[in-house]
Amino acid sequence: MTSLLADSSKPFMAERKSYAGNRFVHVKNPHLDSMDEDILYHLDLGTKTHNLPAMFGDIKFVCVGGSPNRMKAFAQFMHKELGLKGDGENIKDICAGTDRYCMYKVGLVLSISHGMGIPSISIMLHELIKLLHHAKCCDVTIIRIGTSGGLGIEPGSVVVTDTAVDSFFKPQFEQVILDNVVVRSTELDKDLAEELLNCSKEIPDFPTLIGHTMCTYDFYEGQGRLDGALCSFSHEKKLEYLKRAYNAGVRNIEMESTVFAAMCGLCGLKGKISSSLVFGPFRSPHPPFPLPLLEGTKPIIMVCLAIYLQ
Amino acid sequence: MTSLLADSSKPFMAERKSYAGNRFVHVKNPHLDSMDEDILYHLDLGTKTHNLPAMFGDIKFVCVGGSPNRMKAFAQFMHKELGLKGDGENIKDICAGTDRYCMYKVGLVLSISHGMGIPSISIMLHELIKLLHHAKCCDVTIIRIGTSGGLGIEPGSVVVTDTAVDSFFKPQFEQVILDNVVVRSTELDKDLAEELLNCSKEIPDFPTLIGHTMCTYDFYEGQGRLDGALCSFSHEKKLEYLKRAYNAGVRNIEMESTVFAAMCGLCGLKGKISSSLVFGPFRSPHPPFPLPLLEGTKPIIMVCLAIYLQ
Repeated sequence: MTSLLADSSKPFMAERKSYAGNRFVHVKNPHLDSMDEDILYHLDLGTKTHNLPAMFGDIKFVCVGGSPNRMKAFAQFMHKELGLKGDGENIKDICAGTDRYCMYKVGLVLSISHGMGIPSISIMLHELIKLLHHAKCCDVTIIRIGTSGGLGIEPGSVVVTDTAVDSFFKPQFEQVILDNVVVRSTELDKDLAEELLNCSKEIPDFPTLIGHTMCTYDFYEGQGRLDGALCSFSHEKKLEYLKRAYNAGVRNIEMESTVFAAMCGLCGLKGKISSSLVFGPFRSPHPPFPLPLLEGTKPIIMVCLAIYLQ
Repeated sequence: MTSLLADSSKPFMAERKSYAGNRFVHVKNPHLDSMDEDILYHLDLGTKTHNLPAMFGDIKFVCVGGSPNRMKAFAQFMHKELGLKGDGENIKDICAGTDRYCMYKVGLVLSISHGMGIPSISIMLHELIKLLHHAKCCDVTIIRIGTSGGLGIEPGSVVVTDTAVDSFFKPQFEQVILDNVVVRSTELDKDLAEELLNCSKEIPDFPTLIGHTMCTYDFYEGQGRLDGALCSFSHEKKLEYLKRAYNAGVRNIEMESTVFAAMCGLCGLKGKISSSLVFGPFRSPHPPFPLPLLEGTKPIIMVCLAIYLQ
């Protein structure tokens, strides 16, 4: 189905209808309609300066991840896999006018970086959702591919997230709106999780599982690391916390999944988080990332996604 | 005093003693002493791979800001202002091996980017503080220069922060440690604020004031913006909230100040936040940043800091 992915004129998404509640990506903001212009400042795009429907109207898949380099590598990989014309190596960063995020379009696939942490991905998602809305995109699936710490699972595994939970293992995201706290759901699409799991089975020696992903606001004190500038807990206390997380169904820990799930769910994007895992059971605190494993996992995830996206 | 800044052998900091409680940058983590190696993963540095005291031991000032491009521009500006040898235009990114942050050293000044939001700056600060600790730096002053939204003040003004407050106008930062919430102080150095204010007076037409800075986890719903993908409040409700913030002493809003103040305070770094302000009174929601003003403010802040750093 490679050619279909590269050609927006064919009814590619018909068989994926089950994922679509409202087919269009929608915003939940009554003020936007009355605005003369919408500037997506952090993406260096706007409704008056760019023809967003022409540039992005055919997008069906959005893949997001923290690192700009990784999202470029993913776009280059997809360019090759999809057999697209032109030089995939010199693929153009659509957001080159800003240094906040980077964005690449390959066929019907958009690859975007989001930086680290909830606030950083939240800014990008607000502007990405408006971008897809202005471009009149429909039936869009979004997948987060990122690094994370594994809990009680084989190093190098991939967790496909069914539900994102907070530091207290609750399946919710607390959004502060002005000075009110609103609680939002963080459930993700179950069918999509199963489909990604099935894709992974086509690749030999690719440990993949479905589980909860815990999202924290802090990498060191919040995730039980003993090697930050500040640490007030013991090794035993850390293990006790991580065991409780494991018993609550958590299989990996990262820093963006709750707001990702909450915002995508509210705006009609079928969201899924597929995180590369690099730690062993109750991970060693140091070094934080065994790089050879991480490097080995990245291309495998790309292959898995390529199978899914085709 | 330009030559002193570029020469670490002279007792430059003696006259700034009043800022120093404990002269060394200290970590608060008993586990670090027993570690054979400390890898500062997100900075692409480590105690076994790099001679940190030789590379960074003379650092006296650290300037941080969200944007990599801006922190490079600041380093280039300081290189020129300090009259350092070599090509300031092709200044080397010390963290070039990672795409998470960028870092430049010019004389005794370190310029580092931190991305957007509390979690992103928090990761950088953990590793920066350990870097300064391993390098045996002492009497270090840290200043955040960043963009922010102004409240009831002249567009283009600079706010020198005395205290960082949260979305509820409280002078505190809630740090989640495992699943416990610990409240930390967000007060900043008052003497340093006065000194920066005095420096600003040397520059004509440079509106500068001391005030509280509010730090939110969200750029759109959290700061009263009406142009996000999600917005559930009215223009009146937004104004009412911003007026309450103003009455509580808030003069600008950004996304990193509370954790910056909390962590620097705990580790013996004299922290100060000097944010460039680009909005008028009860700012217009759109466009989010009037770029010509922003561009005009940046070099003025650099000049102000150059006066202070010399």
